[in-house]
This record gives sequence, C-alpha cells and structure tokens, in this order.
Amino acid sequence: MPWIEYVGFIGAFLTAVTFMPQVWLAWKTKSVGDLSVGMLGIVFVSVIVWLVYGFFLHLVPVIIANFIVGFLSVVLLYFKFTFPKK
Amino acid sequence: MPWIEYVGFIGAFLTAVTFMPQVWLAWKTKSVGDLSVGMLGIVFVSVIVWLVYGFFLHLVPVIIANFIVGFLSVVLLYFKFTFPKK
Repeated sequence: MPWIEYVGFIGAFLTAVTFMPQVWLAWKTKSVGDLSVGMLGIVFVSVIVWLVYGFFLHLVPVIIANFIVGFLSVVLLYFKFTFPKK
Repeated sequence: MPWIEYVGFIGAFLTAVTFMPQVWLAWKTKSVGDLSVGMLGIVFVSVIVWLVYGFFLHLVPVIIANFIVGFLSVVLLYFKFTFPKK
C-alpha cells in the first residue's frame, strides 16, 4: 500500500473520532446549549453525501468514518432536542 | 466530469461550511462552554492530515474544504480560550 494511503487512513480515523469527546462532554454535563443545530444538521447531510461517494468508489475508510460520524451526530442531535434547556 | 465527482464536490462544500453556523452561534452568544476542546483539537489535527493527503493526490476540493474547516476550527479554539467562562 503506498504511504499516502496510510495518511488517508489516519485522516479517516481522526475524522471518525472527532465527535467522541463532544459526545462525552455533552453526556457528562447534560448541557448542549452552545452546540449549533445547524452544524449538526450539516454534518448529518454531509455524511449521507460522503456515504454515496464512498460506496460508489469503494472507499472503505470513507464509508466507515462516515458511519461513525453520522451515528455520533444523531446522538448529539438527540441530546440537543431532549436535554432540558438551561 | 463523471456524476460521482459532483457528489464529491457537494460533500466537500458541506464539510467546508459545517462550522459556519457554530462560529456564528458562538460569536452571537459569546458562549462556548459546551464546546469540546478535544473535538476542536482533533479537527485541527485531522485537517493537517487531510491537507497532506489532498496536496499529494491533487484533490482540489479536499484542499479547499480543509483550509476552510481548519481556519474555522482555529477561530472556535480562539473563542474557547478567550471568551469568559460563565
């Protein structure tokens, strides 16, 4: 595998874990007032677009990373709409 | 240009604008307590990795999108460290 493919895997890994500290912080504090619904909505739509791209071009890291990001963005949207406002 | 490349451009566009509503909300409210520094840090590192990937493979949408995301993540980190805690 050429070295640049490893760089792509590292990028996909980092992208996949991006929301993990945010989900953890939100869960711990039960506070999501400063999180933008617009941001989370754009993330969710972009995940669908990237999944189409990834499936069509058989880009496994893109597919895996976007499944994870999509799942975590849904978790954050769920928090956003269910945690009581402060 | 094959249709799947348009899908890639749409994905890159959405990724590029992801943080714009978040920067706007943070600027308007001057409140970033619920934003995870860990998330912003991972975004910044992942942008560097994706820029290496994009430059090496001459992926213009990847390069442009990541420059924008990187800039906006630095803006949010700046807000995070300069806005007074509530």
